[in-house]
Amino acid sequence: MTSDGPRFDTRLDRFVDNYANRTRGMRVSAVRALFAVANRPEIVSLAGGMPNIKDLPLPDIADDLAQLVRDNGTQIMQYGSGQGEPRIREQILDVMALEGIEANADDVLITAGSQQALDLVSRIFLDPGDVVLAESPSYVGALGTFLSYEADVVHVPSDESGLDPQALHETATRLEADDRRIKFLYTIPNYNNPSGLTQPWERRIEVLRVCEQHGILVVEDNPYGLLSLDAEPIPAMRSAGADVIYLGSFSKTFAPGFRVGWALAPHAIREKLVLAQESATLCPPVFSQFAISNYLDKQDWKGQIGVYRDMYRERRDAMLAALEDFMPPGSTWTHPKGGFFVWVSMPEGVDSQSMMARGVDARVAFVPGGAFYADGQGARNVRLSYCFPTVENIRIGVERFADVLEGELDVLRTFGVHSPTPHPGRVAGPGPDLS
Amino acid sequence: MTSDGPRFDTRLDRFVDNYANRTRGMRVSAVRALFAVANRPEIVSLAGGMPNIKDLPLPDIADDLAQLVRDNGTQIMQYGSGQGEPRIREQILDVMALEGIEANADDVLITAGSQQALDLVSRIFLDPGDVVLAESPSYVGALGTFLSYEADVVHVPSDESGLDPQALHETATRLEADDRRIKFLYTIPNYNNPSGLTQPWERRIEVLRVCEQHGILVVEDNPYGLLSLDAEPIPAMRSAGADVIYLGSFSKTFAPGFRVGWALAPHAIREKLVLAQESATLCPPVFSQFAISNYLDKQDWKGQIGVYRDMYRERRDAMLAALEDFMPPGSTWTHPKGGFFVWVSMPEGVDSQSMMARGVDARVAFVPGGAFYADGQGARNVRLSYCFPTVENIRIGVERFADVLEGELDVLRTFGVHSPTPHPGRVAGPGPDLS
Repeated sequence: MTSDGPRFDTRLDRFVDNYANRTRGMRVSAVRALFAVANRPEIVSLAGGMPNIKDLPLPDIADDLAQLVRDNGTQIMQYGSGQGEPRIREQILDVMALEGIEANADDVLITAGSQQALDLVSRIFLDPGDVVLAESPSYVGALGTFLSYEADVVHVPSDESGLDPQALHETATRLEADDRRIKFLYTIPNYNNPSGLTQPWERRIEVLRVCEQHGILVVEDNPYGLLSLDAEPIPAMRSAGADVIYLGSFSKTFAPGFRVGWALAPHAIREKLVLAQESATLCPPVFSQFAISNYLDKQDWKGQIGVYRDMYRERRDAMLAALEDFMPPGSTWTHPKGGFFVWVSMPEGVDSQSMMARGVDARVAFVPGGAFYADGQGARNVRLSYCFPTVENIRIGVERFADVLEGELDVLRTFGVHSPTPHPGRVAGPGPDLS
Repeated sequence: MTSDGPRFDTRLDRFVDNYANRTRGMRVSAVRALFAVANRPEIVSLAGGMPNIKDLPLPDIADDLAQLVRDNGTQIMQYGSGQGEPRIREQILDVMALEGIEANADDVLITAGSQQALDLVSRIFLDPGDVVLAESPSYVGALGTFLSYEADVVHVPSDESGLDPQALHETATRLEADDRRIKFLYTIPNYNNPSGLTQPWERRIEVLRVCEQHGILVVEDNPYGLLSLDAEPIPAMRSAGADVIYLGSFSKTFAPGFRVGWALAPHAIREKLVLAQESATLCPPVFSQFAISNYLDKQDWKGQIGVYRDMYRERRDAMLAALEDFMPPGSTWTHPKGGFFVWVSMPEGVDSQSMMARGVDARVAFVPGGAFYADGQGARNVRLSYCFPTVENIRIGVERFADVLEGELDVLRTFGVHSPTPHPGRVAGPGPDLS
């Protein structure tokens, strides 16, 4: 080892042998590296999961916040409750009531965004080698967190109605026969990230029944539930089952920058979550909680969700129309009834990971499907998001994406179909751009 | 098991066998339970670690924030960088320069309060059974976090100049001989929480030298560094050593409710910390970061630290004067040069844990010393804080505390000195009130 002096010493990792085992599950993914490139302005990004908050009433929010600081500054800038402030926990009951949930504010824990709820649930349940069941495909950020706790993610197949209860039963039975410890099922029943699929009500009941039969706790992640684009929201799984940890968020129905999400959990689990929260941060962001509480009191938050719905509906329709117009034959895609994402399945032999670099050349970005699996599936898939770009750019982006796929298919026709190499270990910390 | 229906089902912990091993280290401490009682208005609390932010210029902060929301609302309410926003990381260099640190903004990670930095450092370094070295006594919230990662905390003796380098060398040598893996030394060189002790510059250099000799990483926790009450701050350990993770916070120099702290780490470690942060929260609180950034730009933040210093100096002086006036003979206490806390050592045989209930009866709250050890020490100690109560209440509180101690000493004189039972396992999630 050479040293150029103390400043440069730090570039060498003298502590490389000291890291905890769990850091092996923390890697910068190839996807992330390419994302940095894809952030250039000439590129149409169908990759990000950022909500489009351009229509928020900023002047009103500014005035409300200033008043709040003048009147209650020493309270909202002080340390707060480890569980979260009582008032916002009450207000969250009103939000969840829109999806049929009846609950007690004492069973709600506030988290630094819904991602932190995933982290704290993982923290209290997952030992190395434990199994987490997840949909096929599932949210990259959740998979990364489960892997960072050295858990094994086992994917359960989905059909057009989302998670398949029969496949869930078979998977659980097989794992039990192998003496594996299944700690919970992680599921996104509404407008799944990345698939865009929604579980109908009957399906939710079937999934709950299978979980009850196997004694499996359900973690229901629902960031997009109120962003239904065609009909009223389907009641949450939590409305029909007690053994459910329900995760909610203000990131998509208001704004993500405050980092306020929540977990509604059975009482004993909630107690452990509060201890975990105190160890992790002492208390979730206090100022943020009061800011959102104030927004819910002062502004027409339900009306704002309506504004968001109208905007996202127009964008979803633009993406589906463009896919219909431009995609070469042999591909299929989901028709989401809400949320942010369309999941595209391309012909056998296509490798979406290698397409990504060509996409950047063609000035379009998307997320290769492999990111949403812990086991190397997804090579034939991509996730396209319509939440952030304009209607015009969505159309341009889809056309560019279709061109890239055409080129890929040309290559395949010339050189023959090949079985793509799986890319295990591509899952990593999701980064805000993949949320 | 009986059930009164689905609502009450959740009160039974059906998943009691499912929790991760690490939850065994997460317990509600006896101290916490008593704290809830101690929050009554008639009680003078010398227990909390809440900064007193009454003198912040709230109207100016309110106006600044409103302008920021109007001008940049869609940026500051959006997802942000997993590492933290670039501008505030630059500004933090100016803050750290006040303690002699030269660094690169790329080596700074923003965290949801300094507590989250402790959590993320633990996450990337600690496997079950690893050793963390810590001062005697040390911050309850850090100890709780280390234990929640199933690490063993080994205390290193302190003298009146803080951590004892010779004892550190001997402890490390003994642990190495036992093949234990020491992952880092956790130290609070300035105005230690709870001891109030400060390591002189020469002492810091000695500690660094011992750590270098043994290949031990140093985690330097410095929330109170700029709140020096008698002289200018002593340069940070990080200013003299590269193998240091430095933890800073705006909680005490501005306000804790934004939950913004930071870690300055050697580059390779910083990379792992960012991945851990993304897995934990996607990104630290974005709105909070911009709010603080704006405060640093628009307001006289150094002047505000001066205001805080003057206020805390007056309170510290009041506490030391009251201790001098009221404490029975046989006790000693530290004379802090900054920060929030005085550490009291009482005569042999006193049990500070059992004194706490009597303290509540006498309308005074304090923290028993056992909370600040992972190994059952501290029965003869209490931490008294002067940060939050008024000068008048500090005097009243110390008088009441001295009365409680008198009563305890009377009992001891009557029934004879007994060796107090140690209280292992009292350390738990600290809760905001203990920070």
